[in-house]
Amino acid sequence: MKSFGSLGVGGGVVWVTRFRRCCCGRSCFGFHRGGAYLRWAELRAGLGSSSRHLPVSFPPALQPASWAMGRPTVLLLLLAFLTPGAAIRVPPAMKALSSLRWSTSFTSRGTVAKKYSIHYIEQKVNHFGFDADKTFKQRYLIADEQWKKNGGSILFYTGNEGDITWFCNNTGFMWDVAAQLKAMLVFAEHRYYGESLPFGNKSFTDSRHLDFLTSEQALADFAVLIKHLKKTIPGAKNQPVIAIGGSYGGMLAAWFRMKYPHIVVGALAASAPIWHFGNLVPCGVFMEIVTKDFKRSGPNCSETIRSSWDAINRFARTGAGLRWLSENLDLCTALTNIQDVQHLKAWISETWINLAMVDYPYESDFLQPLPAWPIKVVCQYLKNPSVSDAQLLQNIFQALNVYYNYSGQASCLNISETTTSSLGTQGWSYQACTEMVMPFCTNGIDDMFEPHSWNLREFSEDCFKQWGVRPRPAWIITMYGGKNISSHTNIIFSNGELDPWSGGGVTKDITDTLVAITIPEGAHHLDLRARNAFDPTTVLLARSLEVRHMKQWIRDFYANQRKKH
Amino acid sequence: MKSFGSLGVGGGVVWVTRFRRCCCGRSCFGFHRGGAYLRWAELRAGLGSSSRHLPVSFPPALQPASWAMGRPTVLLLLLAFLTPGAAIRVPPAMKALSSLRWSTSFTSRGTVAKKYSIHYIEQKVNHFGFDADKTFKQRYLIADEQWKKNGGSILFYTGNEGDITWFCNNTGFMWDVAAQLKAMLVFAEHRYYGESLPFGNKSFTDSRHLDFLTSEQALADFAVLIKHLKKTIPGAKNQPVIAIGGSYGGMLAAWFRMKYPHIVVGALAASAPIWHFGNLVPCGVFMEIVTKDFKRSGPNCSETIRSSWDAINRFARTGAGLRWLSENLDLCTALTNIQDVQHLKAWISETWINLAMVDYPYESDFLQPLPAWPIKVVCQYLKNPSVSDAQLLQNIFQALNVYYNYSGQASCLNISETTTSSLGTQGWSYQACTEMVMPFCTNGIDDMFEPHSWNLREFSEDCFKQWGVRPRPAWIITMYGGKNISSHTNIIFSNGELDPWSGGGVTKDITDTLVAITIPEGAHHLDLRARNAFDPTTVLLARSLEVRHMKQWIRDFYANQRKKH
Repeated sequence: MKSFGSLGVGGGVVWVTRFRRCCCGRSCFGFHRGGAYLRWAELRAGLGSSSRHLPVSFPPALQPASWAMGRPTVLLLLLAFLTPGAAIRVPPAMKALSSLRWSTSFTSRGTVAKKYSIHYIEQKVNHFGFDADKTFKQRYLIADEQWKKNGGSILFYTGNEGDITWFCNNTGFMWDVAAQLKAMLVFAEHRYYGESLPFGNKSFTDSRHLDFLTSEQALADFAVLIKHLKKTIPGAKNQPVIAIGGSYGGMLAAWFRMKYPHIVVGALAASAPIWHFGNLVPCGVFMEIVTKDFKRSGPNCSETIRSSWDAINRFARTGAGLRWLSENLDLCTALTNIQDVQHLKAWISETWINLAMVDYPYESDFLQPLPAWPIKVVCQYLKNPSVSDAQLLQNIFQALNVYYNYSGQASCLNISETTTSSLGTQGWSYQACTEMVMPFCTNGIDDMFEPHSWNLREFSEDCFKQWGVRPRPAWIITMYGGKNISSHTNIIFSNGELDPWSGGGVTKDITDTLVAITIPEGAHHLDLRARNAFDPTTVLLARSLEVRHMKQWIRDFYANQRKKH
Repeated sequence: MKSFGSLGVGGGVVWVTRFRRCCCGRSCFGFHRGGAYLRWAELRAGLGSSSRHLPVSFPPALQPASWAMGRPTVLLLLLAFLTPGAAIRVPPAMKALSSLRWSTSFTSRGTVAKKYSIHYIEQKVNHFGFDADKTFKQRYLIADEQWKKNGGSILFYTGNEGDITWFCNNTGFMWDVAAQLKAMLVFAEHRYYGESLPFGNKSFTDSRHLDFLTSEQALADFAVLIKHLKKTIPGAKNQPVIAIGGSYGGMLAAWFRMKYPHIVVGALAASAPIWHFGNLVPCGVFMEIVTKDFKRSGPNCSETIRSSWDAINRFARTGAGLRWLSENLDLCTALTNIQDVQHLKAWISETWINLAMVDYPYESDFLQPLPAWPIKVVCQYLKNPSVSDAQLLQNIFQALNVYYNYSGQASCLNISETTTSSLGTQGWSYQACTEMVMPFCTNGIDDMFEPHSWNLREFSEDCFKQWGVRPRPAWIITMYGGKNISSHTNIIFSNGELDPWSGGGVTKDITDTLVAITIPEGAHHLDLRARNAFDPTTVLLARSLEVRHMKQWIRDFYANQRKKH
């Protein structure tokens, strides 16, 4: 993945060859590091004084006083999780850091070659209107080495908010099950992400160009693409298609089955918070789960974090305190005012949230290179909430270093660097301001964060300032049914109990064919990751159940087909 | 309905009072006559030299040679059937004709008072985009005299291409079953029809203003409206809603259940040709059924009509022949050239088609005042195809008079009068040019018309000239599943076997809960019409089956609700 160094903002990776061998594991480290870059980059998008102000970029615990808590800040975490580094301009210093870390921190399973071909389909920019008949090229990837024309299937990844090659490389599960399902793998890029830009580099210039960035248009792209594949690939026509996705991609997979059951026979919706809308779940559930993850990972761990905010606030009262914080937290740029302190708290909060999402049972490098069960490692530094403020914050610094400096190469922690906006963050920020309105809140009691309530009015104002659009928080529920989805069939909702997104997910069976699979030791869509020697039994069981359901859908499809003939 | 005389083009009826007693039967004759006006009006839209050329207005048998057969001309018939006279400017002469006929020709069941209230809801012009946050007022009617808050239901008419008051008055079935289903009746107007104009009188000015006229937007309106009703009407929240519609409205009802099963527990889709798209059914099926209706209604009847085209063509070769035709067919305006003759044949073809749609078992006044079983009456004049051309065409004239002059008051038959375009025809013409691309064709062998093939390319060109848009014939199938709809539940597809639209409808059960009801003696959605003493047993049976299914859906809904609590 040497080409990583040449990535720029705006267009994603440009593949020169039609076929390219990608990989996961040690040799893809640089590519994975994209996630880490994004962590920084997107934080800056909110923290920096960029002229393009992102209303959704402050993590909840640390929004400026003029901002109400609860803007979909956490969505950026989701985004962070899923948006490729490809779209982020990597600061030279970070590139160096990346190369230094190259060979030190990735210890999971060795390289698995992933061979796919890259394709483009001409899609209508607007499936739901006929005035502008404009089209754009949607990118998709096909891997058909395991595919059998006789009795096979098609696993279709419903791409979410990022470069599709990143999903292709980070959904090892599909590659792992391809042989037993005789499956062709298709990874479809979501419009407005990666290379699939309806208006090229003008796609994000204003609300007029962004008007076609909706889940409905994305699902329509998928539907048209599958019809196209069935028409053009010999042998594909009479095969069952299964939608698979994680996170927002999981929501899309579920919704795709709900809205286009004639096109996909079923859906695996991994870590899909389809109920994190309106009042379907309490707005505090996400941060409560983050807190629980820390609570269970070490004695006094969440209490120590809860105490840290006031400790920071007390230090922040004086210039000397700010200097102390800057030095003892090893910040690259000194804090100079209260806003910097808000940024610091936002950055720390987001770190804990990220850790909750990637609390995997083995060393990984999804957002940052991390040890196995990283929260446990973090909590070793956070055992005592009752020490002095100075000692407590020095302990917090140690804990932060697990996340930001596991490799030991970082010379300072940088929370103030501004960055250019990335496609991923732009796209998701717009989606969060329109359809994907997810309320978040904290109360400082059931969670370890400073209290913030959800304020839709202010959120709407910020969205209008940023994008010239206003959110329609009720729409997604009207469109996709909220909790009233029992008439649908063949959807697996999988959730890791460690994953904060599970709070907005379906974690109990709705019917015999709308099933919930929970993974007690699972963080964010662990089940979609490639097999790993350190996988807990529960995720192995989950995957095996998922495959069993998929096989049943495939069998049913062929049985129905035989009945017809 | 004296207000009928004051109707103009553009805005539909303006109701001054909030409550208004409407009726069906004798006293509503003037209103019903709207259908008849439309027959003329829309024919003119295609025949006249209006600057606004409608590409879809020539009935198949008589398109100018430069036009390929098969443009969705027949859709206008559907439209004619359903679009209210309200939107049509009534020429003074026709008004006079109407008043002369007022009391002579309607003999079905007496007046049934229909009391409803009129409401408006603010709807987003674009549910699928956020750039323009514009709204418009959608009209809907509520009749709740029979509604019970305890154990009741809501019957929701998914309005189609016309003024909603017309549907309200012409869907007697809903009124007839309201009491036994303890039902509130809601009639929702389709955007771009009646009063529900997104851009007022600019709604049809260009493709930019028409960009939001799609079935998807209409379904979203219905979904938002039902959520609104449940939120604002005390007692409505926990009641089951059933979608009901006829013709295009029946398609919408079925699609509504498919796409929003969380909002409606089931759908009655009457005479809904959901398969009249792409290659799902042969393009000739519609005209074949028209032909069969004539064949079964009298010996040699269809053969006589088949012979008539050549007879007309032979007369049309000379000026004397044109004069003879003009005089003997009693045309108000003499034929002068070959184009006039094409118009004549179009007009005659459309007459036969209309008769097939309204071949009801009792006197009615849907498109024109007609006797019971009007085709049988027509066929009494069409018993011999082997007479001389002159005799044959004089017989045709007698037959036409059954349709156009049942009351005996018409002094001549007018096929050349131009008319302003109506909202209904405009709207449907646009829909036929975008989503609702229904192929029609004839071969002159299996049907009694002149042969014409379906030519999508030419159709597309015509649409582009007319509306600046191009049809997407595959889209509706991608969106709504075509024949692959078996995963849905709780939809009744009812079809009359006499109805030419049944050829594109679902006439066999798909599953236990996707059921087909066929009515051997039924024309176009006879089952949705009010009870009538002359109803054949088969329609009574059909209605009773429909009610049985609806009751089951309602019971299931309440049983599920009890399970939850």
